[in-house]
Amino acid sequence: MKKKCPKNRPIGVFDSGIGGLTVVKEIRQLLPREDILYFGDTARLPYGTKSAELIKRYALEDANFLYERDVKIIVCACHSASSWALAEIKRAYPIPVIGVLEAGARAAIKATKNGKIGVIGTRATIASDAYERALKRINYEHGLNRAIEIVAKPTPLFVPLVEEGFIDHPITRAVAREYLKIFPKEGIDTLLLGCTHYPILKSVICRILNKGIKVIDASYETAAMVKDILQRKDWQKETGRGSLKIYLSDITPEFEKIAEQFLEEKPKVILRASLKEKITIKE
Amino acid sequence: MKKKCPKNRPIGVFDSGIGGLTVVKEIRQLLPREDILYFGDTARLPYGTKSAELIKRYALEDANFLYERDVKIIVCACHSASSWALAEIKRAYPIPVIGVLEAGARAAIKATKNGKIGVIGTRATIASDAYERALKRINYEHGLNRAIEIVAKPTPLFVPLVEEGFIDHPITRAVAREYLKIFPKEGIDTLLLGCTHYPILKSVICRILNKGIKVIDASYETAAMVKDILQRKDWQKETGRGSLKIYLSDITPEFEKIAEQFLEEKPKVILRASLKEKITIKE
Repeated sequence: MKKKCPKNRPIGVFDSGIGGLTVVKEIRQLLPREDILYFGDTARLPYGTKSAELIKRYALEDANFLYERDVKIIVCACHSASSWALAEIKRAYPIPVIGVLEAGARAAIKATKNGKIGVIGTRATIASDAYERALKRINYEHGLNRAIEIVAKPTPLFVPLVEEGFIDHPITRAVAREYLKIFPKEGIDTLLLGCTHYPILKSVICRILNKGIKVIDASYETAAMVKDILQRKDWQKETGRGSLKIYLSDITPEFEKIAEQFLEEKPKVILRASLKEKITIKE
Repeated sequence: MKKKCPKNRPIGVFDSGIGGLTVVKEIRQLLPREDILYFGDTARLPYGTKSAELIKRYALEDANFLYERDVKIIVCACHSASSWALAEIKRAYPIPVIGVLEAGARAAIKATKNGKIGVIGTRATIASDAYERALKRINYEHGLNRAIEIVAKPTPLFVPLVEEGFIDHPITRAVAREYLKIFPKEGIDTLLLGCTHYPILKSVICRILNKGIKVIDASYETAAMVKDILQRKDWQKETGRGSLKIYLSDITPEFEKIAEQFLEEKPKVILRASLKEKITIKE
């Protein structure tokens, strides 16, 4: 396949659904000239409750869809996929691959003073221990000779609450109080939002935590990392306003409504990307 | 394929996940001699947020898995699949096929005095209008010359709350109060629980509604309908204690934990039924 000059190739972003559009929103603000191809695997979402083996296979298929469309960088905007599949995707493709998890972990290591970091995410993200490993590795790479202590808590109701439109809602505040009550006790000074839906709840979360705790939004940090890589490689697009094409493997009216909420703009192009499957279910 | 005598063939039950085990629990209580094969499509759950087209395809694949294993009856224990795919499954196979939706609707028509029936379920179930159509058709078939009025309300947070183990929990009660507040105002006398997870919340729901409202548990009604069909056909197994084989298309520790809660017994045999897929994602 003959590749165009990287400057004019799009940025590829994928997620298990539409949560990754919170990353797209940040990329469009930081890099408004860049074209973006987004793939949301809405036919098979969520990944967060599925097994590691299945998440790996799905993530490789998603990355391949983007790679075949000549993207210059692949952004894995799904925390569950970043936890389990990022190394495989990096091995499979000769272009830069970055994941929300690593971007969030880097920012948390920079932010923490006392080395005590809280992480919230889906069950799969938290169970993978991927944040723990990433935080410790990055701390070591930065030559910071200090102990890092991680307090991880799965918060699986946050995604359905956001998708139900219960944002600054008494029920959401009650759920957040229940989930977050362990963090002040544990003495963390930094909380990492380990799921792409969570930035939508950032103001609710910040109000419940005491002021001393910094809240890290991995969607923003991922966009900043994309910008940094493109700058270093001199791959930034130089003219025009960036386009956004959203491919979904299943389309429903709810997905379109939530997409708009996450993007903070009305998506112009939503296309169906079918899973061409030949399925037999076997013992 | 040579079929055994129906008496000794198993009952087949499928669902998008493990919620359908609430139907299995009821079948095992009503028909303790029967062998049951259960297929839960945990690799692709939930169906409730997906498009009608996709739900139909998945449901036909699930039914086929059971049919190939020589079941005497197919029970579609998934409300979303019952809403969208039951007619197709009935056309595809020469054995009795029943769905949770129809069983629940029959019981609600019998129970209501004033003709005002409330229905709660996932977004897909409620959006399909399938309950409305089923309730009106059954009312007509029963020769009941009365108007039926349906008040339908999607209650999408109930499934993640049950899966989080928040059963008789203040947050669940708050969500239930918020969702159910319209029903007493509307003057319903019967509420149909249109999702297999909801029987777990039945006591919470009953306490919030006023005493005059009858709550119909579609899982129990489905089991009663299976018993009725087997009796009429003289297909009941005559000896022994029934076995239960659970096939899941993806297995995680959480699925096993929830399976036990739904079944009210520890499942002995959980087997992996892989989706043999050749997937390419195409525009």
